[in-house]
Amino acid sequence: MRERLPALGKSVLRGVGDDAAWLKTASQTLVTCDLLIENVHFLPQLTPPRLLGRKALSVNLSDIAAMAGIPDFAILGLGFPREIELEYADELLEGFLEVAAENKVELIGGDTTAAPVLTIAVTVLGRALNKRPVLRSGAKAGDEVWVTGTVGDAGLGFELLKKSLNQEQEISELHYSSLAVRHLNPTPRLEAGQKLAAIANAMVDVSDGIVSDLTRILEESSRKTPLRGRLFLERIPLSRDFRKYFEDKPWQSKNGLALALTGGEDYELLFTAAPKKRRLIAKLADELGLAFSRIGKIEKARKIEIILQHENGKTLPLPKPWFEHFPKTESTPN
Amino acid sequence: MRERLPALGKSVLRGVGDDAAWLKTASQTLVTCDLLIENVHFLPQLTPPRLLGRKALSVNLSDIAAMAGIPDFAILGLGFPREIELEYADELLEGFLEVAAENKVELIGGDTTAAPVLTIAVTVLGRALNKRPVLRSGAKAGDEVWVTGTVGDAGLGFELLKKSLNQEQEISELHYSSLAVRHLNPTPRLEAGQKLAAIANAMVDVSDGIVSDLTRILEESSRKTPLRGRLFLERIPLSRDFRKYFEDKPWQSKNGLALALTGGEDYELLFTAAPKKRRLIAKLADELGLAFSRIGKIEKARKIEIILQHENGKTLPLPKPWFEHFPKTESTPN
Repeated sequence: MRERLPALGKSVLRGVGDDAAWLKTASQTLVTCDLLIENVHFLPQLTPPRLLGRKALSVNLSDIAAMAGIPDFAILGLGFPREIELEYADELLEGFLEVAAENKVELIGGDTTAAPVLTIAVTVLGRALNKRPVLRSGAKAGDEVWVTGTVGDAGLGFELLKKSLNQEQEISELHYSSLAVRHLNPTPRLEAGQKLAAIANAMVDVSDGIVSDLTRILEESSRKTPLRGRLFLERIPLSRDFRKYFEDKPWQSKNGLALALTGGEDYELLFTAAPKKRRLIAKLADELGLAFSRIGKIEKARKIEIILQHENGKTLPLPKPWFEHFPKTESTPN
Repeated sequence: MRERLPALGKSVLRGVGDDAAWLKTASQTLVTCDLLIENVHFLPQLTPPRLLGRKALSVNLSDIAAMAGIPDFAILGLGFPREIELEYADELLEGFLEVAAENKVELIGGDTTAAPVLTIAVTVLGRALNKRPVLRSGAKAGDEVWVTGTVGDAGLGFELLKKSLNQEQEISELHYSSLAVRHLNPTPRLEAGQKLAAIANAMVDVSDGIVSDLTRILEESSRKTPLRGRLFLERIPLSRDFRKYFEDKPWQSKNGLALALTGGEDYELLFTAAPKKRRLIAKLADELGLAFSRIGKIEKARKIEIILQHENGKTLPLPKPWFEHFPKTESTPN
C-alpha cells in the first residue's frame, strides 16, 4: 500500500512504516471511527470498489463536518477475504485516496489483514474550527431546526439498486442515477459544517434519518428541562427525482414518508440555530449554492419526543422505519 | 456501552455521544490501529472474552511502547455476530477497560455494529516522550541489538492451546499456564519503552518474531548503505518453561528454533543502541526488574539480511516460519 500513497505534508512527521504514525497536531483534536462491513453496511454486488473506498472515507468526514471541524488525517484498517482480487483492492484504495485528496486529508497509517468478509475500519483525526466544535448538546428551546440539501434520496437509491438486483436488471445506468449516487457516493458537507461553526447551536449528520438524528440532538441537549422537536412535514426538502418516483405525492405514500424521515445515509447536516440567524443562513445558502431548509423548531416539553405536523397544524404519527416498509433483502445497511 | 465507561479525565472535552470525540492533545500525536478478527487473529474457543478484550488494547499499547510513547486515548470499533451473548460482550469490554485503567488510557469513542464474525478495530492515540519518538529508522552500523524479556513463549503457548483443543483436553489450567498466558494476555512494555527514549536508536515491538521485526528495522534504517543484523543464537532469551518443553535443548529442536526466532506475538521490545549505552541498559534492567538481552549487532553490508550464528562463530540458516513447522489448524494468527 505504501508505494501507492501520495507524498505526505509537513504535519506528518512519520506516516506508514513504523509502529505508529507521528503527527503534528493542534491543541485540540477531533476523532471519529466507523466500521463498514460487507453485507451489513454494503452489498458488494451493488457497490463498485472505487465508490466503496470513497464512501468509507466520506462517511467519516461527514462526522467531522457535523462537528464544524476540519479533517486532517485518516487511518485505514482493511480486512480482505482471500478470494478478493488485487485489482478490486487497488480500486478501493484509489477511491479512498480520491476523497482524501479532494478534502486535503492524509492517509497516515493502518492495518491490512485477512477477514471472512470485506471489513473496512476508518479513523479520522481533525480539529475544530475556532477551537470549538458544534456539539449535539447545544440545542435550546426556541431554536429552529434546519437541514441541508435533500433527504430520503440515499434510502430510495438503495432500494432501487436492490430491486435492480432482484430483477437481474442492468444496473450500470442505475449506478449513476441521481438517487443511486446519493447512496453510493455521499458528499460530506465539510464546507457547510465549518461555516456553521458560528451559527449552529447543535449539529449532527443525517446518518440514520432526520427523526433518529434529531432525537440524538434532543437527548444530548435535554438537561434540566426535556426538549422536543416539532417537524413541519411539507417543509422537509425532497429532490425532484424523489418526488417524481412517488408521482409528486411523496407525503401520500407510506414509503415516501418513511424514506424521507427515517431513510438515513443522506449525510446532510441537521442543525439547530436561534431564529435571529435566519439571514446569515440564507446568505450561506447563496454562497455555497446549497439548499438550507428550515424544517422545525425546538420546544420545552414534558418528555423528549418528536412531533410531526402538517403546515395546517394537524399532527400525524411518526412513520415506522423505512426498512420495515420495503421488501427486505438479506441485509439492510444501518 | 456509554454507561459502562469510567468518568473521563479533563483532557477529554467530549467522549462517547457525539459525531466525534473532542480531545486536548499535545503538539505531536502518535496514532496506531489494529484489526483483530475471529479465526484470523484469535480462536474464540481458546480465548476467554475478558482476555480478548485485554489483548485487543494491549497489542496497540505495545505499538505505542515501541515508539517510546505515552498512550492517552483509545477508540474501540466492535462488530458482533448476532448470536453473541450480552455477557460475552460485557466481559470483552471489561477486559478492555481493565487494561485502559492499568495504563491510564481513556476510551473516548467507537462504533458498534453487526458483523459475520467478531471484529475488533482499536485505534490508540498517544504522545512521544520528550516530543521525539524512537523510530524504526534510527539503527546505525555498530549498534548492538537488544530484546526485553523472553521470546517464543507466546507462539508455544498458542500451540499448546491448539493441541489441547484437538485432544479435547481440559484447557482451564492451560489458560493460566505461563506460556498460554503469554499468548492470551500479553504485557505492553510501556515503561521500558519510555525509559528507552534516550537510549535506543531504533525500536520495534516483537509482533511477528525477532527475525521479521529486526528486518523491519534494517529496511527502514538502510539508506545510503544497506545494513544487516547479526544474531547470536545462544544469547536469545528463552523462558524456563520454554526450555523445559524442549527438554533443555531448545536450539537442537527445529520447532524450538522456529518459535524463538519467528514465533511472534511476544510483544517484547526489540531495539538497537550504541555499545556505550550498555551500562545505562543494565541499570534500567535492575530498575524495572526486566531482562534486557544483548542478542546481536548491526553491520554495514552489501544487502539487507540477517545472519544467524552460534557463539563459536559458525553460522546457520534462518529457520522457516514456525507455522510451517507445527501441524496447521484452520487458522494461524498473524
